[in-house]
Amino acid sequence: MIIDIHGHYTTAPAPHQGFRDAQLARLADPSRPVPRPERISDDALRESVEHNQLKILRERGGDLMLFSPKASGMEHHITDPATARDWARASNDLVHRVTELYPQHFAPVCQLPQTPGGGVADAVAELHRCVTGSGFVGCNLNPDPSGGHWTAPPLTDTSWYPLYEALCELDVPAMVHVSSACNPVFHTLGAHYLNADTTAFMQLLQGGAELFARFPGLRFVIPHGGGAVPYHWGRYRGLAVRMGLPDPASLLGNVVFDTCVYHQPGIDLLTRVIGTEHVLFASEMLGAVRGVAPETGIAWDDTKTYVDAAGLAPDQLHHIYEANARRVYPRLDARLRSQGR
Amino acid sequence: MIIDIHGHYTTAPAPHQGFRDAQLARLADPSRPVPRPERISDDALRESVEHNQLKILRERGGDLMLFSPKASGMEHHITDPATARDWARASNDLVHRVTELYPQHFAPVCQLPQTPGGGVADAVAELHRCVTGSGFVGCNLNPDPSGGHWTAPPLTDTSWYPLYEALCELDVPAMVHVSSACNPVFHTLGAHYLNADTTAFMQLLQGGAELFARFPGLRFVIPHGGGAVPYHWGRYRGLAVRMGLPDPASLLGNVVFDTCVYHQPGIDLLTRVIGTEHVLFASEMLGAVRGVAPETGIAWDDTKTYVDAAGLAPDQLHHIYEANARRVYPRLDARLRSQGR
Repeated sequence: MIIDIHGHYTTAPAPHQGFRDAQLARLADPSRPVPRPERISDDALRESVEHNQLKILRERGGDLMLFSPKASGMEHHITDPATARDWARASNDLVHRVTELYPQHFAPVCQLPQTPGGGVADAVAELHRCVTGSGFVGCNLNPDPSGGHWTAPPLTDTSWYPLYEALCELDVPAMVHVSSACNPVFHTLGAHYLNADTTAFMQLLQGGAELFARFPGLRFVIPHGGGAVPYHWGRYRGLAVRMGLPDPASLLGNVVFDTCVYHQPGIDLLTRVIGTEHVLFASEMLGAVRGVAPETGIAWDDTKTYVDAAGLAPDQLHHIYEANARRVYPRLDARLRSQGR
Repeated sequence: MIIDIHGHYTTAPAPHQGFRDAQLARLADPSRPVPRPERISDDALRESVEHNQLKILRERGGDLMLFSPKASGMEHHITDPATARDWARASNDLVHRVTELYPQHFAPVCQLPQTPGGGVADAVAELHRCVTGSGFVGCNLNPDPSGGHWTAPPLTDTSWYPLYEALCELDVPAMVHVSSACNPVFHTLGAHYLNADTTAFMQLLQGGAELFARFPGLRFVIPHGGGAVPYHWGRYRGLAVRMGLPDPASLLGNVVFDTCVYHQPGIDLLTRVIGTEHVLFASEMLGAVRGVAPETGIAWDDTKTYVDAAGLAPDQLHHIYEANARRVYPRLDARLRSQGR
């Protein structure tokens, strides 16, 4: 089967954004009542995905997508913890409902209620609620809640450890994924996302030996094909030599990359350099890009087309499309097995 | 001939750092006298490069290197303008002396005296001094003088325009190059440099149509193989479609990439995706990495080996090794012609 590990609910019905707007309005005017998520019907949820993610997933031959709230909408830069908790909960509950409506096609991944400087206790609580209560199989972890001001400590800092303990206890991985950039130098989709991927990997290269000795089961998924990392794999190897660090390949038991790279040469490089045991199929659909390459007629984010054309053997394709995802997301594997898949 | 457009004076004699240390000591204790650059003999300069950049350039078959002050040492995050002016001047003068000692092997590129929030007047003045007074052929422009806090406006902001007017008037390009990161989330060589390359390109994609209409002759060199950009070229094309922007290829008359990518698959992708008319040979030597890939015996930063093995035709190699550099750096071309080359 073909598992897309990186899909976002970018098409949630408008009342969900209405709730968010009411939250922000209350932060501007605290005399307003605390808003509650608006009611959204199952039909509205169905309509929001059947012509979008679900339709495209089917058209392109995918079987199941890991589905998480819209990344740019997480907006962890809003500093009020209660607002962050309510927003994460509402966003995750909506994602959960979609996955319950289409259990054959979606499995849920949660957003965490992070804030700049806010600690990880709320994130740990929401992670537990989602995973143990609602069958979520992973989470998105924002290494920069400030949204482009980069005020949080590196991912190897001990302040993250309570969250890592929860991830290991629950046996779920974290995708390292920032949200909207609030700094005008960074375009969210064209710079901030890729920079965060690159930054996180380098933090893990610097401090991974200690971190993964402490948390051997901790697993990070670096999205967007690992940012700049596979393209600069020789740079990382040479840096590791210079800095007396283990070779970056030693991280790949704990750090994997997805295939959200939107042209054939990029996918060729990714699969050739990183190897097919540590790359997980993904499209980020409906995500960063729209449209079709005029010279090929292939949609930019139809990453399956590129993976299929990368000259890989059947067992290598099986790793990228299915086996690696089942290994990195054991709760997804259990969910699939409970469905007889 | 083979021109390496990206080399840094990372091996300057110790008294140069002594001057810097004295500058910083005076900032900590303003009762100290304003330090002056220490005297450094020609022999010390010769010794500093003959066993390093010059030796390796010759060993690898290079003919000439564009030589600029150590990038991580620019330290634009130090906010005192007079300190920045004196440091840039001393660093540039030292580079100039090396290029005068070895005019066949080095041509000078200058550091600019930037500071966080400090405007560009001092940078314009130093650029004029170096180019018209000392034959410099280009400069390094830091898009983030803060060193990883990213407090400057995007490169498309009008506050940069006086510098762009000077670049166009003098007909020299700017390499977009940050300095040391002061933010612990960013490793200077493994994250900050690559992020800055990616960030700058996306800024130019967003605002380049207007910027280059205003400054048709403005040219930027994005180092380190363009950061994440060529690997994600399909993402940029798809983003451009989504945002109603011109295709990123339309920027390549004003934006070029260097070959500081330290493995064969990266160079293969770069030359295949970007094309050989917009890629300039470079090694960043002695720069980010040290050592040799054990499986090939090739030094990580021996980029000529990768370019030679990329399957390019002789005229394509000529573009990468020489013709593009002469086009982008016309003052280098004039210098070479005056030498009968």
